[in-house]
Amino acid sequence: MNELIGRVFRFEKTVFPGSSALYGKLATHGQSPKALMISCADSRVVPELIMQAEPGDLFVCRNAGNIVPPFATQNGGVSSTVEYAVAALGVRDIIVCGHSDCGAMKALSKPETLDGMPNVAAWLRHSAAAQHVVNSCYPDLDGHDRIRAISLENVVAQIAHLRTHPAVAAAIVRGEMALHGWFVDIHAGQVLGLDGDTGRFLALREDQPLPVAVSSTPRMAMDYATVEAAE
Amino acid sequence: MNELIGRVFRFEKTVFPGSSALYGKLATHGQSPKALMISCADSRVVPELIMQAEPGDLFVCRNAGNIVPPFATQNGGVSSTVEYAVAALGVRDIIVCGHSDCGAMKALSKPETLDGMPNVAAWLRHSAAAQHVVNSCYPDLDGHDRIRAISLENVVAQIAHLRTHPAVAAAIVRGEMALHGWFVDIHAGQVLGLDGDTGRFLALREDQPLPVAVSSTPRMAMDYATVEAAE
Amino acid sequence: MNELIGRVFRFEKTVFPGSSALYGKLATHGQSPKALMISCADSRVVPELIMQAEPGDLFVCRNAGNIVPPFATQNGGVSSTVEYAVAALGVRDIIVCGHSDCGAMKALSKPETLDGMPNVAAWLRHSAAAQHVVNSCYPDLDGHDRIRAISLENVVAQIAHLRTHPAVAAAIVRGEMALHGWFVDIHAGQVLGLDGDTGRFLALREDQPLPVAVSSTPRMAMDYATVEAAE
Amino acid sequence: MNELIGRVFRFEKTVFPGSSALYGKLATHGQSPKALMISCADSRVVPELIMQAEPGDLFVCRNAGNIVPPFATQNGGVSSTVEYAVAALGVRDIIVCGHSDCGAMKALSKPETLDGMPNVAAWLRHSAAAQHVVNSCYPDLDGHDRIRAISLENVVAQIAHLRTHPAVAAAIVRGEMALHGWFVDIHAGQVLGLDGDTGRFLALREDQPLPVAVSSTPRMAMDYATVEAAE
Amino acid sequence: MNELIGRVFRFEKTVFPGSSALYGKLATHGQSPKALMISCADSRVVPELIMQAEPGDLFVCRNAGNIVPPFATQNGGVSSTVEYAVAALGVRDIIVCGHSDCGAMKALSKPETLDGMPNVAAWLRHSAAAQHVVNSCYPDLDGHDRIRAISLENVVAQIAHLRTHPAVAAAIVRGEMALHGWFVDIHAGQVLGLDGDTGRFLALREDQPLPVAVSSTPRMAMDYATVEAAE
Amino acid sequence: MNELIGRVFRFEKTVFPGSSALYGKLATHGQSPKALMISCADSRVVPELIMQAEPGDLFVCRNAGNIVPPFATQNGGVSSTVEYAVAALGVRDIIVCGHSDCGAMKALSKPETLDGMPNVAAWLRHSAAAQHVVNSCYPDLDGHDRIRAISLENVVAQIAHLRTHPAVAAAIVRGEMALHGWFVDIHAGQVLGLDGDTGRFLALREDQPLPVAVSSTPRMAMDYATVEAAE
Ligand SMILES: [Zn+2]
Ligand SMILES: [Zn+2]
Ligand SMILES: [Zn+2]
Ligand SMILES: [Zn+2]
Ligand SMILES: [Zn+2]
Ligand SMILES: [Zn+2]
Repeated sequence: MNELIGRVFRFEKTVFPGSSALYGKLATHGQSPKALMISCADSRVVPELIMQAEPGDLFVCRNAGNIVPPFATQNGGVSSTVEYAVAALGVRDIIVCGHSDCGAMKALSKPETLDGMPNVAAWLRHSAAAQHVVNSCYPDLDGHDRIRAISLENVVAQIAHLRTHPAVAAAIVRGEMALHGWFVDIHAGQVLGLDGDTGRFLALREDQPLPVAVSSTPRMAMDYATVEAAE
Repeated sequence: MNELIGRVFRFEKTVFPGSSALYGKLATHGQSPKALMISCADSRVVPELIMQAEPGDLFVCRNAGNIVPPFATQNGGVSSTVEYAVAALGVRDIIVCGHSDCGAMKALSKPETLDGMPNVAAWLRHSAAAQHVVNSCYPDLDGHDRIRAISLENVVAQIAHLRTHPAVAAAIVRGEMALHGWFVDIHAGQVLGLDGDTGRFLALREDQPLPVAVSSTPRMAMDYATVEAAE
Repeated sequence: MNELIGRVFRFEKTVFPGSSALYGKLATHGQSPKALMISCADSRVVPELIMQAEPGDLFVCRNAGNIVPPFATQNGGVSSTVEYAVAALGVRDIIVCGHSDCGAMKALSKPETLDGMPNVAAWLRHSAAAQHVVNSCYPDLDGHDRIRAISLENVVAQIAHLRTHPAVAAAIVRGEMALHGWFVDIHAGQVLGLDGDTGRFLALREDQPLPVAVSSTPRMAMDYATVEAAE
Repeated sequence: MNELIGRVFRFEKTVFPGSSALYGKLATHGQSPKALMISCADSRVVPELIMQAEPGDLFVCRNAGNIVPPFATQNGGVSSTVEYAVAALGVRDIIVCGHSDCGAMKALSKPETLDGMPNVAAWLRHSAAAQHVVNSCYPDLDGHDRIRAISLENVVAQIAHLRTHPAVAAAIVRGEMALHGWFVDIHAGQVLGLDGDTGRFLALREDQPLPVAVSSTPRMAMDYATVEAAE
Repeated sequence: MNELIGRVFRFEKTVFPGSSALYGKLATHGQSPKALMISCADSRVVPELIMQAEPGDLFVCRNAGNIVPPFATQNGGVSSTVEYAVAALGVRDIIVCGHSDCGAMKALSKPETLDGMPNVAAWLRHSAAAQHVVNSCYPDLDGHDRIRAISLENVVAQIAHLRTHPAVAAAIVRGEMALHGWFVDIHAGQVLGLDGDTGRFLALREDQPLPVAVSSTPRMAMDYATVEAAE
Repeated sequence: MNELIGRVFRFEKTVFPGSSALYGKLATHGQSPKALMISCADSRVVPELIMQAEPGDLFVCRNAGNIVPPFATQNGGVSSTVEYAVAALGVRDIIVCGHSDCGAMKALSKPETLDGMPNVAAWLRHSAAAQHVVNSCYPDLDGHDRIRAISLENVVAQIAHLRTHPAVAAAIVRGEMALHGWFVDIHAGQVLGLDGDTGRFLALREDQPLPVAVSSTPRMAMDYATVEAAE
């Protein structure tokens, strides 16, 4: 038997009993997670570890490439998970988290490696903007730098997709939602954050404001009245 | 016979001969339109009249509700028209143009009027963000004000959709694309423009800078190198 | 600033005030357009100019290639615009209007030019019948003649698609709908019309009946009774 | 065990040996069927019995409601079967065959009976034109007559869908394809055929020409040249 | 006129009158078929002949490749026919029936032969599991053996798809549904059946139990209670 | 600022440095995870905690309801993640992991609670089989027991979906893939496993063989030859 699978007994014997108070509370009161994290399926990037999250802290959606399709007529698992997080759980922070050495981004950089994986290829069309930006704006990049650029632009693209989701768009207008675009460098042990105003990624620094992709500044409720008055 | 249809002969007899030099040039050299306008099918809002455009000036996409679906796995006519305008024709300005008294927006405001029109209902899901924003952020609006608010938010939503299109996203990063969100008030004879920085619509005024939804400021080509250096 | 965009002020200053009575009436009473025109996004083919239409006269749907997808389970912007025109506005004439030197039809003729435009390529599958007819029935055509043939057959194909839309099909049976297939030759300043009986395009001539693709002859309400009697 | 399933042994023991020459020829030379029949899954309407067809004679597609979706971006089993029949097998006659007492048509007539069958409901959207025609043009019909009318109009609608398929459209232009719209009355033992010129169904009579929905008269290869000359 | 089509008169003159009692009963009482058969459109494989079925015995769905797409968000004709058979007609046996020398399976074996048939190619993605199994597990097979292996695995794959349909899944749990996977060898006049326990196909033999793909053994209604008790 | 988000600095300061050898190895050699886990986005069910997995051990896909859509023509993020795990990473164990008090399953049990969440409602159609099984086979269950039954049947349904994926199906035939269906009871701190032979869930016990949903017993490569010989 797969050795990893056998470790499940430790959960029953050690982990659960050791956190029985927390689990009891979570089972009784239900969850009220503090954020939604959309990250890659990659085994090396564990959201709860990066966020130092306890059970109950973090609603998590993971897929190859940390992708959020835009809101469209036909939606799937990511859109539904976003909708549930915002509409049912009232989450007010969403983090899209990419990472270095991402297999999906490497495949996007070398599409010929996707030949035996038609579904991955189709799925990565949701990263076409990242690919297009790098091909068109940074044509001289190659190798590691090109993959890094695609991975960062992919986070930018997924943040743009997130904004098309009605529940997210409305929460932003109400000033009740912030979007975060992160990139975990698993080689350097460093996390970068997208600054939405400049479009650049900055190293997160404890002594500086956290860069935010889309901040939670409400538009005022007066807006439409103002326009009326202007006529 | 429908009287309107009979007027086509005037085109052959009067219009074409009167502009034969222009048509001759356009037929010989092909088109190189100065902008793409995405507007409603409404008969009262004639893009070429609003823009005072000659044949050859304006690439035009029109549909019920001036909608641009986001870039997704399965795309249709609007996405293709955007792609053709940017990739094949090199258009550098895209205008999304809503208008007052819009039948589609009125239907969005009163969904029960869509009962016999299942396709319109499905199509208007691409305006769900506008509907959601107004329902959630401006619950007290009703009647004419509510329809106006939905129509303005619909322009905001379609601009957000436009940004998900790879060719548009890349042109924005290169600083070669500006997006414009307009609203034509056919009662007041006035055109409003979305100011992307504040999220508000302003009356266009000849003596002031044109409000722009997404401006054409490039991110610098150094960006990724800078990030590397920061590590 | 793009010079074309600056012209919008002329609309506010000149056009609107000059037609204020018409606009006032249209704003008060709403639109009741006399026809729906489905034409190409091409900047050289201005529907209102070809039809000599005033604001309020013509409901207009425009996309790359003047395409009408057939009525299917999943419908988009064109289907919705058709549905709105027929069901909400009661339009009784629909014109599908192609044109010479059409970029979409040239791309269909040389599919390899579509390599960087996957959405246009997918969209043009709705013109596959035109492509198939010309490849299979007129294999010797090439160059300008081949593009012209594809463009004409494309109008035929889109008329066939229009007939699959329930609202259109029912209006035809009631004798309350005529479909028109036109082709504007922007080199010759000439308009051709599809004669549905023979399947050929004829020059429109003021002294002859207008060729019609599908005419508005009702089937009699007796039909089903008659069949019963025949048993 | 289900008694019907046990009858399969008779095929091995009796049917196959009794037609071994025919099966041997069909296995060696492959099939070259004389027509494609699209009929309902209904157990009472056996295509080979109605057509008096031997093995090898009739390519058959059957589904609930004898439906042919129009040719669209995403196609399924019926479209593929049509494509294979025309492109790979060279079939030159296609029969769409409806029937009396059809469960699918009855469900279309009373949509509330579809509540537990969401897929059937979605599938029957391909018959929306038939439903729309009868509701709109024959509002006074009810009961048996209404179901009969919907069933006949459904055959008309599926013939319209068939014409959107590129391989079919091209074969019609070449004069190598006839489309037949039939209705089998299993109460009266009678077969009706759609006459495409009048849009009515006629009883098939051995002493009269078979009514044809779309006949195989080619358009002449000269067509485009003629149009050129007309300019 | 196509000679086959002319044979329809024999149905009216001979077949129907000869079975008028049966047809009368079926018209009066409606159908209650004993099984659903999903088989290929191939003209050489006549389900009613193989099953020795009378009118009224067998509900039949036929398409190129005897394919059943899995139950998904968007479903088509086969899914609807399955749903109707189980939910409306209460069918308790479903037979998926492949055959030798199948054109669809040969195309799957040589995908390059599908170049002119994009819909068939797309449709056959529902047989991708069969193709993948043979390519990966039996790489040394070629020619006739490879096509046979793909055809058999295709039956296995379609049975797996059938199990994803809710109505089928529930009937299996209730013990009211058996699934059969058959293969008709039209060269040898032999029928093979899938034994679900071993995953192998066996010749059907009258003196042995019929091999069944998924048998109708109910899970006990106690199941969930039992689990509760185990805690 | 959201307190949770601020904890990210601990990752940089403490977690990464403390595991620098492991991360260094994973960054240099890439990942080779021991299993794919498909679990719910629920914040209380942390896959790495349940599996006691280190970074690099577990490829993880998470979405609302731990759903795996079946392999179909149009696939999304889960299908792509499965494909990548099997085809690119060679994963040989897949665990579908449900849990108690699941919001998605509760919504499935009371569909009226989904009114404001149309995407979640659409996504949960992939759990329709579970809903259908419980409604039809265990009609007397209600409250907590009904939700538990739906959650368990949902795991069964997703395992059935997994088997339709070509890469999974082929790996099963080769004997290189085991599928596991688990249910984590966060109230009792207990993990149940699906026994594929009986269709029941059993408590995992360290002293007994792990129940397996689909085991990795290969079919022999001789299969097709054997069938040939049987003719
Ligand atoms: Zn990754
Ligand atoms: Zn409008
Ligand atoms: Zn054009
Ligand atoms: Zn029927
Ligand atoms: Zn076959
Ligand atoms: Zn859950």
